Amino acid sequence: MNKNNAFYAQSGGVTAVINASACGLLETARLYPQHIGTVLAGRNGILGALYEELIDTSYETDAAIRALRHTPGGAFGSCRYKLKSPETHGAEFQRLLEVFAAHHIRYFFYNGGGDSQDTTLKVAQFAQQLGYPLTCIGIPKTVDNDLPITDNCPGFGSAAKYIATSTQEAALDIASMAKTSTKVFILEVMGRHAGWLAAASGLAARQAGDAPHIILFPERVFSPNAFLAKVKTCVEQHGYCVIVAAEGIRDAQGQFIAEAGMRDAFGHAQLGGTAPRLAQLIKEQLGLKYHFALADYLQRSARHIAAKTDVDQAYALGKAAVEKAIAKQNNIMLTLQRGAGADYTWQVGTTPLATVANAEKLLPHNYISEDGFGITDAARAYLLPLIQGEDFPPFSNGLPDYVRLQNRLVEKRLTHDFASVS
Amino acid sequence: MNKNNAFYAQSGGVTAVINASACGLLETARLYPQHIGTVLAGRNGILGALYEELIDTSYETDAAIRALRHTPGGAFGSCRYKLKSPETHGAEFQRLLEVFAAHHIRYFFYNGGGDSQDTTLKVAQFAQQLGYPLTCIGIPKTVDNDLPITDNCPGFGSAAKYIATSTQEAALDIASMAKTSTKVFILEVMGRHAGWLAAASGLAARQAGDAPHIILFPERVFSPNAFLAKVKTCVEQHGYCVIVAAEGIRDAQGQFIAEAGMRDAFGHAQLGGTAPRLAQLIKEQLGLKYHFALADYLQRSARHIAAKTDVDQAYALGKAAVEKAIAKQNNIMLTLQRGAGADYTWQVGTTPLATVANAEKLLPHNYISEDGFGITDAARAYLLPLIQGEDFPPFSNGLPDYVRLQNRLVEKRLTHDFASVS
Repeated sequence: MNKNNAFYAQSGGVTAVINASACGLLETARLYPQHIGTVLAGRNGILGALYEELIDTSYETDAAIRALRHTPGGAFGSCRYKLKSPETHGAEFQRLLEVFAAHHIRYFFYNGGGDSQDTTLKVAQFAQQLGYPLTCIGIPKTVDNDLPITDNCPGFGSAAKYIATSTQEAALDIASMAKTSTKVFILEVMGRHAGWLAAASGLAARQAGDAPHIILFPERVFSPNAFLAKVKTCVEQHGYCVIVAAEGIRDAQGQFIAEAGMRDAFGHAQLGGTAPRLAQLIKEQLGLKYHFALADYLQRSARHIAAKTDVDQAYALGKAAVEKAIAKQNNIMLTLQRGAGADYTWQVGTTPLATVANAEKLLPHNYISEDGFGITDAARAYLLPLIQGEDFPPFSNGLPDYVRLQNRLVEKRLTHDFASVS
Repeated sequence: MNKNNAFYAQSGGVTAVINASACGLLETARLYPQHIGTVLAGRNGILGALYEELIDTSYETDAAIRALRHTPGGAFGSCRYKLKSPETHGAEFQRLLEVFAAHHIRYFFYNGGGDSQDTTLKVAQFAQQLGYPLTCIGIPKTVDNDLPITDNCPGFGSAAKYIATSTQEAALDIASMAKTSTKVFILEVMGRHAGWLAAASGLAARQAGDAPHIILFPERVFSPNAFLAKVKTCVEQHGYCVIVAAEGIRDAQGQFIAEAGMRDAFGHAQLGGTAPRLAQLIKEQLGLKYHFALADYLQRSARHIAAKTDVDQAYALGKAAVEKAIAKQNNIMLTLQRGAGADYTWQVGTTPLATVANAEKLLPHNYISEDGFGITDAARAYLLPLIQGEDFPPFSNGLPDYVRLQNRLVEKRLTHDFASVS
């Protein structure tokens, strides 16, 4: 426990495959004991480092680590906590390095999205300034698929497969019932700024007339009139209309549709929701019978319908993190690179942390059809490889057999506690 | 086409496995051409009979019929339409028999829930009165699991498996994030009157402290105070709280929680939703960060996570419908009978239609825990066998490969159209 330990933490919203990255990292680290002593995982992400709550992963059996590959959620806990600037909040960074020094931590592996890569970068710079020897490597992750440089982000492909499958299945249900029942169905999916998940629903349409008939992207201004006209035409043509809406769509004034001023009987502001607002519009303006579903966390935790490609990539990135660290690469985020050929191929690449921190990749203009309500062939060509392959978890007694780790904390070595997270 | 044809129709809300019953029925009918000429399926359920829109299933290949076993939705279309009384609406029944006579239909197979079995009974009685030779057999189906006599209903087991799996997966997500993010998660599931689907979520809990921590049943009066107290305790104990709520829960006045008087900015009555109302309560009274999901149609169409037991039972009921008809049984609904032993066994039984029409089976008192927020061991013992086994559909290019039938209509033989469905 006393030399060249590594710190690994999960950060931000978890996914169906972030534990597959942890699995790749831990399994690979165990192959190189001469380089990496113990991998200490942060309890609840970076907070684990600040509070000196470090999980000793060496207590976990090989079988338990292997099972992380098929277990959703964040096995060590994650958090939404972004380190501020070292200039204004130097104490936090100081504390981080004190904890790292006390536990002989020389590797910092941070598994997260855009905000997290910003943290990785700041930690790397601070350690460098203080001359603390720390190898910092970012491992990408986000269902939002909005990181730049990398071709795609682990977690996205599985959520995309879940959404496309659910759209296809719900559409069969609605098509059967439309004659006398629901005419319009709305599925609300994640995506505050980027429409990648909404776009993925478009893969459910395999021939003309197939659902989804309308996709609403945060990258396009929501126009009630154009939307309602399209719904009307669609119901006239097909007998029903399936809509997939990103939670983050906004009107011409930039206001989220989800926050359009609902009040309860006492005048209190009411909880938002994009789908209910759209349903309300359809009911009032077109008088059509509607239903809506909110996938919410189900879409990012649905390991039971994960894409094998996604699981493989998540694992490969965890593995590569250790390999690159041992090869003395530093201050990088790992990326997925798509091959140039017609058949989909991918490999792990790297990019300097500074190129990804706080940047956000939206849907390219040419991925959205001209009327703004669908995806193009270019989008399909990009998206389709990412949902390929099935990788069902083992089942036991009717349900997926997900692992629970022991998560034993290392004894604290610092005499003072971290004050608190402001 | 001119002797002893059969009419088959799907009725009411469709499920992930109603087509498996169609598959069993059609495959078995093809084995007995000397008894059954052609199976004509109603386009959009019973409406197909009234409008003489009959699908000639003999055009469908054996492979297409086989694929029905793994395809959700209603392949021939279903409807929400209940025949009224023959005394007051005799014309409808008259029309039905005219269409049947014109197409030499001697078998009436009706695949539906409680309302549908009422229709089957009325048709059987009317045909008997008029001396029209018609064998009437009801095939049960409903995700609500609320039919009496039968041990369970096809469609329920798969929706139950989906709900238990989704609860388990979402709970792992929330547990990872609870330290700094969502503390309370609510999953709203179907169930206007019966809490079977909500109860099924309880199977996700395998050890003490596991989610779901609170289940809200339509069979219990919703008490805001008891509920909020339980949420508070749960968050204090576990750091988070997972709630599964049936859509149909009501307060002490009998009012649906979903219809608790939401208004938009213009004072219009706002769309309901049980989960948003519960979230509102939690936000206002406890100030906890919440998220909610509405599974809606996703739960009853999720063929990708169907229970093999459910698929097998649905198929067996379709098969038995033909076999019983050939054996000259009449005016019956098929049932599933549970064996008495410790190990789960089942077989197909029958019951007179009159025993099931319009009856509704709620959760037994001893299936709900004393505090009203969980399930008992008796409930687990009943529910667990029903979600057993996996029966993944084939996948093609990343998505389930569901079949689309040709659905070719038979030429009409009657000179007059059916006026309209009032």
